[in-house]
Amino acid sequence: MSTTTTPPLYRQLATHYRGAIEAGALQPGTRMPSLRSLMRLHDISLSTALQLCRTLESDGWAEARERSGYFVRRPQRLRMAQMDEPLAGLRPDPAQYVGIHGQVSDFVARRRAAKVKLNLSIARAAPQFYPAEELRAAMTRALRLWPDVVSSVPPLQGDPHFRSVIAQRAVAAGMAIAPDDVLVTNGCIEALNLALRAVAKPGDTIAVESPTFYGLLQVLESLGLRALEIPTSPQTGLSIEALELAVQTYGDIQALVVVPHLQNPLGSVMPDAHKERLVRLCEAQGIALIEDDTYTELLDAEGTPRALKSWDRTGNVLHCASMHKILAPGLRLGWITAGRWQARVEMLKYTQTRNNEILSQLGAGQFMGTGAYDRHLRRLRTALRGQRERTAEAIATYFPEGTRMNLPPGGLQLWVELPEGCSSAVVFDAALQEGIAIAPGWLFSNNARSDRFLRINCGWPYDDGLDTALRRLGTLAGNAIRVG
Amino acid sequence: MSTTTTPPLYRQLATHYRGAIEAGALQPGTRMPSLRSLMRLHDISLSTALQLCRTLESDGWAEARERSGYFVRRPQRLRMAQMDEPLAGLRPDPAQYVGIHGQVSDFVARRRAAKVKLNLSIARAAPQFYPAEELRAAMTRALRLWPDVVSSVPPLQGDPHFRSVIAQRAVAAGMAIAPDDVLVTNGCIEALNLALRAVAKPGDTIAVESPTFYGLLQVLESLGLRALEIPTSPQTGLSIEALELAVQTYGDIQALVVVPHLQNPLGSVMPDAHKERLVRLCEAQGIALIEDDTYTELLDAEGTPRALKSWDRTGNVLHCASMHKILAPGLRLGWITAGRWQARVEMLKYTQTRNNEILSQLGAGQFMGTGAYDRHLRRLRTALRGQRERTAEAIATYFPEGTRMNLPPGGLQLWVELPEGCSSAVVFDAALQEGIAIAPGWLFSNNARSDRFLRINCGWPYDDGLDTALRRLGTLAGNAIRVG
Ligand SMILES: Cc1ncc(COP(=O)(O)O)c(C=O)c1O
Ligand SMILES: Cc1ncc(COP(=O)(O)O)c(C=O)c1O
Repeated sequence: MSTTTTPPLYRQLATHYRGAIEAGALQPGTRMPSLRSLMRLHDISLSTALQLCRTLESDGWAEARERSGYFVRRPQRLRMAQMDEPLAGLRPDPAQYVGIHGQVSDFVARRRAAKVKLNLSIARAAPQFYPAEELRAAMTRALRLWPDVVSSVPPLQGDPHFRSVIAQRAVAAGMAIAPDDVLVTNGCIEALNLALRAVAKPGDTIAVESPTFYGLLQVLESLGLRALEIPTSPQTGLSIEALELAVQTYGDIQALVVVPHLQNPLGSVMPDAHKERLVRLCEAQGIALIEDDTYTELLDAEGTPRALKSWDRTGNVLHCASMHKILAPGLRLGWITAGRWQARVEMLKYTQTRNNEILSQLGAGQFMGTGAYDRHLRRLRTALRGQRERTAEAIATYFPEGTRMNLPPGGLQLWVELPEGCSSAVVFDAALQEGIAIAPGWLFSNNARSDRFLRINCGWPYDDGLDTALRRLGTLAGNAIRVG
Repeated sequence: MSTTTTPPLYRQLATHYRGAIEAGALQPGTRMPSLRSLMRLHDISLSTALQLCRTLESDGWAEARERSGYFVRRPQRLRMAQMDEPLAGLRPDPAQYVGIHGQVSDFVARRRAAKVKLNLSIARAAPQFYPAEELRAAMTRALRLWPDVVSSVPPLQGDPHFRSVIAQRAVAAGMAIAPDDVLVTNGCIEALNLALRAVAKPGDTIAVESPTFYGLLQVLESLGLRALEIPTSPQTGLSIEALELAVQTYGDIQALVVVPHLQNPLGSVMPDAHKERLVRLCEAQGIALIEDDTYTELLDAEGTPRALKSWDRTGNVLHCASMHKILAPGLRLGWITAGRWQARVEMLKYTQTRNNEILSQLGAGQFMGTGAYDRHLRRLRTALRGQRERTAEAIATYFPEGTRMNLPPGGLQLWVELPEGCSSAVVFDAALQEGIAIAPGWLFSNNARSDRFLRINCGWPYDDGLDTALRRLGTLAGNAIRVG
């Protein structure tokens, strides 16, 4: 994540106006100062004044009315109740094979068959938020500078420069890893496959957060592993007490997979004290700790939080990450640092897919070595924050009474709890018929309660079409309440 | 493979001179006509005359002597005895876990630790034989034309145009597959992983050729599968009788992996009648047939031989292939057509690595859609044939009495049988100390006899350094004979 820098002028001014609105100095419904007076008042250019108004708009503190300028408004998300914490001492479900393969195939097939106009079921920003032009330029340059890119076999571990950039950036998260400890993979998903194959064998039990990323449940099932779901807080992530209980109840947990920052789907962030306790617990219990670090760079806070891996003293943490969500969804740039399983993971990588192609590593390595990368990340985080807030507000406004939601401190998505008696499977079916795709809760857990939840992507720019779709989703959710 | 076209003029002339030498009209040791007289005699340009002489030289029918021009010579490979056929009715070894992981790691580690000056242990042509410039130009163009290459997620199955080129070219091999039947993978190795994971589960028995590609043995072991080695002829490939016997002896063979054309390491090519019988046998016995089609395009013969898949009526054949050896060793362009396991293979691909990056598909697809691709393949085959013949000749000349070898009709390598009492493991160690890497026989089979064999890459241009290295290898092989 970025080192601390002064935000641009329009951002500073936006914070000022937001304060004025929160303090009541500017009332909802009143007209904002005109562009002209903003220019005069703050001695700024037209384009800065415009950026200021657009920022207020995308954050939900102003709205544009045709031909009459910007009007003050007040986001309404505060109306909505927060979700429950998981029950302390909750007994985990017995370890089970996942049985999610068929469900996911069915989900994918139905989504593919439908005419989806608005896909809110993914976890990704819109293409325009990624620095496509710069990366293409960097890759074009690399094609010119490295004539052997297509005709020679690159190193199994990946491009040395790319790996050194990764190792450098890891310092900010408290990790001390050498470039040679980094193995480039086809996305984080291959890293997770390799990590699990390295530490476990078919039939073993793997603890996971509940709810969790359905891709992980698929991986477990396809490898013949059992998933043991550990209750997880929408605020502070994995419950360490619940994990301790699970260890006492089922002694044979081989590994644990955790997303400590901006967990998918919850958006939770583990406090440092929890992270350290977790690392020590896994160490003591001989549970391999697989850290999925896909989303950290999307955290709003300044400064990079410490990775689990930063507390690792024994090589028990396997750290996995990827550029997929933060830099380039079209590239398959992931990596793994596998602690004491490094050699085994390298051999499995060789056996499974050989080396990665190298061009995207050359391009991304070049781009990431410049200030442009941090500037891109700041822009992306700002855009996502605005979109998350607008989406949260729309859900608070349009969804039925009793809907609950937390506003995560970063990332791409919102996790929404529907009122008692409401099934996200029903909402999914109804919405898909109208061309809107959402991710129903049963994708994220085998737990029956998961049907009350759904996940909404906040990667699209907020506009009228999106607003209308969210309103419609609210109506469909209302219709889906079974009155017992 | 190419459709029949007239070979270029210098090739026609080379064939003419080769005939003259074989007929004795030109005697070894005599001077070839000078470039000037060749130009006059055949009414050709200087560059054609030069190409003619270089072709004769690289095929072993002439040698350049400094400042005195080209001299006629005669390849000596005919001296060498052919290898034995596998014994008919040979009883296969009982199915076993492979136990090759450690061996291969050890091999790789030792090769990496040594200062390798000449790597003859790979199966790949030198970089200059691949159309790097054209492919880089095509990829640069694609970066310009497809602005979304890095910012959007491409289809899971791969680029539609690339897949349609693959489907089109499959017609020549007798396969009728739609572009949608083609799933792009990270090389043939991922295709093989997916095929095996789709048809078998840990503990199952998979029949393989003996000897076979060590990468396959690694894959089997890493997936917890048992390898059952089936005797294979250096001429006609897998012994169907031996497979039938294995089926009778061990009823439970889940799948068979076969390289029908230019088998690695043997270089054998299955006759059509064998292929058809094999497809029918597997169909009748419920054995999934995994076809590895990595090398077909490197066959010298005009016209493409039929794929096993072309006889498939029930979706029982999973066809895997790749561009790695024939177009671009730096790219990871493989694919699979999985018959009735297509949906399962697609889901496993999604779970294991998601979609491939798309740029190399765009570039390769463009290049393969032009005549330049067939011209490249012809040039590559010609170069490889010359290098194989020169290498074979050197082995015939330098290796100890009792060495045996077949000359395969195409491809990248020679499989050499050392005399009784000679260990390729000993030769490997001794050669590595001098900076020469070869592939020792024990990489290719668990059978104890395999230590008598070694595999030599013919992908490097033949020059004095290579000649010296082969002579040295011959000496080391002689030293390695244990006089019992
Ligand atoms: C938590 C988590 N891990 C891993 C992945 C997959 O990442 P990649 O595309 O890099 O394979 C995702 C994508 O949705 C994810 O949410
Ligand atoms: C028979 C065979 N299959 C598959 C492969 C691997 O191919 P790829 O590099 O396309 O994964 C090789 C490479 O050595 C091979 O010899």
